[in-house]
Order: sequence, then C-alpha cells, then structure tokens
Amino acid sequence: MKWRDQIKAASARIAGHVRRTPVMIADLSGRPVALKLEHVQHTGSFKARGAFNTLLSEEVPAAGLVAASGGNHGAAVAHAARSLGHGARIFVPEIAGPAKIALIERTGATLEVVPGAYANALAAAQAFEAQTGAMQVHAYDAPATVAGQGTLMAEWEDQGLEADTVLIAVGGGGLIAGALAWLQGRRKVVAVEPKTCAALHAALAAGEPVDVDVSGVAANALGARRIGSICFDLAKAQGVETVLVSDQSIIEAQGLFWREMRQLVEPAGAAALAALIGGAYRPEPGERVAVLICGGNIAPDPLQHQIMPGS
Amino acid sequence: MKWRDQIKAASARIAGHVRRTPVMIADLSGRPVALKLEHVQHTGSFKARGAFNTLLSEEVPAAGLVAASGGNHGAAVAHAARSLGHGARIFVPEIAGPAKIALIERTGATLEVVPGAYANALAAAQAFEAQTGAMQVHAYDAPATVAGQGTLMAEWEDQGLEADTVLIAVGGGGLIAGALAWLQGRRKVVAVEPKTCAALHAALAAGEPVDVDVSGVAANALGARRIGSICFDLAKAQGVETVLVSDQSIIEAQGLFWREMRQLVEPAGAAALAALIGGAYRPEPGERVAVLICGGNIAPDPLQHQIMPGS
Repeated sequence: MKWRDQIKAASARIAGHVRRTPVMIADLSGRPVALKLEHVQHTGSFKARGAFNTLLSEEVPAAGLVAASGGNHGAAVAHAARSLGHGARIFVPEIAGPAKIALIERTGATLEVVPGAYANALAAAQAFEAQTGAMQVHAYDAPATVAGQGTLMAEWEDQGLEADTVLIAVGGGGLIAGALAWLQGRRKVVAVEPKTCAALHAALAAGEPVDVDVSGVAANALGARRIGSICFDLAKAQGVETVLVSDQSIIEAQGLFWREMRQLVEPAGAAALAALIGGAYRPEPGERVAVLICGGNIAPDPLQHQIMPGS
Repeated sequence: MKWRDQIKAASARIAGHVRRTPVMIADLSGRPVALKLEHVQHTGSFKARGAFNTLLSEEVPAAGLVAASGGNHGAAVAHAARSLGHGARIFVPEIAGPAKIALIERTGATLEVVPGAYANALAAAQAFEAQTGAMQVHAYDAPATVAGQGTLMAEWEDQGLEADTVLIAVGGGGLIAGALAWLQGRRKVVAVEPKTCAALHAALAAGEPVDVDVSGVAANALGARRIGSICFDLAKAQGVETVLVSDQSIIEAQGLFWREMRQLVEPAGAAALAALIGGAYRPEPGERVAVLICGGNIAPDPLQHQIMPGS
C-alpha cells in the first residue's frame, strides 16, 4: 500500500484515540509563523499517534507490549496499551528523567529503568521480547509507527495549513518520515537536529545511516544513535535540508516560547523553533514558515514549585 | 451604538494587534469539552483585547496612560502602550506577585507596587490620573474594555464553536460582560467565581453591586471588590447562572490541565475548568460544554527550576 493510503488508513484508525491538536499563527521572530501545538497530544507528544496506529493495526499477543524509549514513546505506548486493555513493559534509559518516568508510571505500565543510553534500553527490550513473545513497538523505524506519525501532517493540512516550509525536529526520524511520506514533496521540509544529536545529518553526509554520539539538553527525546532507515530513505529521495541547532539556542527558544506564548515545552519540543529564532534556518523574503511543536514533557514538574496564595 | 456593532468594530480595530488564539476539543472530565486557549494571547491573558480596543478608539493624551491592576490588565495596557508608542504608568497591589510584576517591567512601563489589595492600587492610579491628565484605562467597567473582551467570544464563534453552554471565570466582570454582550442569550453562559472572590454572586443575591472581601489563590486576577456595573446589568438582564469553586478545586484543575494537556495556567485561568472537573457545574446529558481558559501568568517562572541536561 502506498504511504498516503497508509496514512489515511491510520487517520481513520486512530480517530477518537488521539487529540486533534490546536494550530495557530504567531508573530515570532518578526514574522508570522504557523504553529502546530502537538505537545497538547495525549502523554505530551506526537508519539501517541504511532503507538495507537501500531496497536490498532496488528494483533497484540497475550504477552502484551514492550517498548524501549527515551520517555515519550514509552509513555505513548503505555497510554495506548492501557486504553486498549493490553499490558505493557517499558524500558527507559536513566536519562529519560523523572518527569517522563513518572508519566509512564501513572499509566500503570511496568517500567524498567536501564543504566546508560537509549541503545541499552532497546537491547533490554529486545531481550524481553525474545523471552516472552511480547510485541515490540519500535519508536520510529517501523511502517505502522511512521504512518501514525504521518497523520499529524495530514491533520495540519486539513486544518488549513498555509506554509511553504515546515520545520520539524528529528531524533530517530519517525515524525519527519511521516511528514515526508504524507507531503511527497508538496512543501519543503527542513530537518532540525541538535548539534549533539545529529543522526540524520550524519547519515546524509555519509550516504547511509551511521552511528553517532548523542548528548545535550534534548538527548532523551532526540538522541537516537542511528537514524531510522525509513526516514533516511525518504529524506535522501526528497533531498531534505538539515540544519543544526545549539543547546543554547534550544534553551533560548524554550524560554521565548514560555515568555511570549505561555507554552512550556521540553527542549526537543523547542528545537524546531530554535532553528528559526536562532537563525540556523533563514527563510527567504515572503517564504511562509511553519514550525511543529512536538513535545512538552519537561522536567521537573513545574507545579511543584508554585507559590500557593497569590500565585 | 449597539453592543454587537461595538464588538464588531472592536474586532476590526484590534486585528493585527492581538492573536487569534487556538481552540480545540479535549476529552476532560469524561466528556468532550470545547476549549479556547486565550492564555496564549499577548501578555498571557485576554486583557490585551480590551487594552488595544481602548487605546485605538480614544485619543491618548501626551501624559500617556495609567492603569491599576492585579497584574494581567496592567501587563496588557503596558504592552499595548509600548506597541502604539505611548507612555504608561501601572499601579499594582503587592499580591500581583513576582511573575506579573516582572512581566510588566519587561514592557518598559513605569511600575508602582502599592501596599494592600487592588482597591488601593486603583486609588493610587486615580490620584495619578487627577494629577497628570493621564488617561485611565479601566480594568473591566468601561464600554471600550467590555467591547474589546467581547471580541473573544466573536472570534470563538468564528472559529466554529459548537457549545450549548460556555463557562467563564469572573473577577470584575469585563470578560463575561463582553461574552454576554456578544451572545445576547444565544448560548447559556455560566459565571464561575472562587468562593473567596464572588463579587457577581453577591451582587446578584443582593440585587445590586455590593462590596465583598477577596482572598485565595486566584485573588490577584479575580479579586475585584465589587462587580462592574456593565457586567451586573447584563448578567441580571440575562439571568446568568453563577457557580462557586473552592481554591482546592482550582488547584486540582490547574494540575489536571498541566498533566493531561501540558497547559500551565494561573489559578484564575483554571477556575472555569474547575467548575466542570470539580462538579460545581454539572451539565445535563448531551449538553455541549465550552470552557474559556483566560490567563496563564503563573508564578514563579517555571523555567527557573528546570534541570538542564536531560530535562
């Protein structure tokens, strides 16, 4: 089945399970910018789309589900599993951080925190899959995941998106792969990666997916060691432009987004915005730009520091 | 001029100066709820609408502007003044709190923090007005302010609002007055007040505006000592239903809104939602409910506590 048909089927499948997230035009960086506030999605990121699409399109074994995740994908799989009545075991690396770990625990899934980075959690999840027969839900490099994430761009266009160019943060590449699969070149897509988590940039330079080191403020969400092959193939075929942003510019964009728009997002959620605000991506005069805000699972919980009276 | 014409004129006047804020349907409290995310407005609340409408519909004297405010109105007047090239002096009570005071300072307005509550700041602003000839921008009880706030409901309907009932938090009553003036009875409007800031409830019970004591978590935004006369007249004529919410239910709604939707708002911004979630307002079966999220200027700044790496 062709990508666009797969994404349309996914949209129908997950309707009622995911939120139609809000869009708006904001005056940021001296120009109107179309925003998609996908951090308002269930469990705080776009990952719910791929998780529901996967669980609803395949038969889930009695052994339930297993996923490895820097946090957001695990929370989405855990939420989708509970919604649909399945058990779930989620392996996260320590760098997932307390907010994402608490989010997964609230869903009732069984959580295992693995020392090291995402790759270690993935290895543990694969061992669990082999032992138990649980169904592995890949965070980004599986067709059902990519088709689910592709529903986001389909939805945005259905909401009347007017943009020549869409900026999307890239980790393992599931989200941008879904967007590329849906758009098929009809709009320019710019891949934004932190300088310290640049798996797609490195792959395009090398001509094939290669391992990279990952670190920095957005590593628990964007820190894939190797870009997904589905994403790589689509990005290479479509000649996607990649831009790199510094941790400092991510933090500045995160602060600006809170101060100017009262939207508090995690560093990964502000990375695409950082490319525009920090100047890593400079639009042409008249170019209409859109920025996808993909995740909001910031740590620690901001409400724990609120002053009660008169706050 | 009739209210609806005034509001249409205000919408045309302030277009380009205020944001068209996002709307969405969310599954909260076990039912779909239409939300208007007005805390994404400039300076974090609906107050920018009334401020711009006032400044753009009257001649501003050389002495500039003066306003008294629990924080949100002052920030809006200060922002509108700077945008339009006027000076502004803003009087706030101590309970405005550090976040709102910092927000006003960032606009470049001259700020005076007055000991006591809102009424004390208003007295100081009136004295300043008398001394200098500066133009007083009233926070809620002036036709230009009410017409400006009324643009919010006009915009929401233009965005396709489907709701039988709209829940709106009430302080001095400018926002709900604008909604009543626009809707003219076409939808049910429910006034939500904290038990400890219930100026409209007390006025409707007494048959006229009366002074009330104000306190509690939302007092700096909803703590008007006396309901505005424009609001009172509209609410009485339309037989508006009022419901009261506890501080505890406001805090619970604020927490739920963050956990479930990654929207971090001030207590006043969560008050209308609290009426639905806490059960102070119980819709009939099939009743379609909308909740207006009116302000997001929470204190202290949530970003100051973020963990940098791996957050």
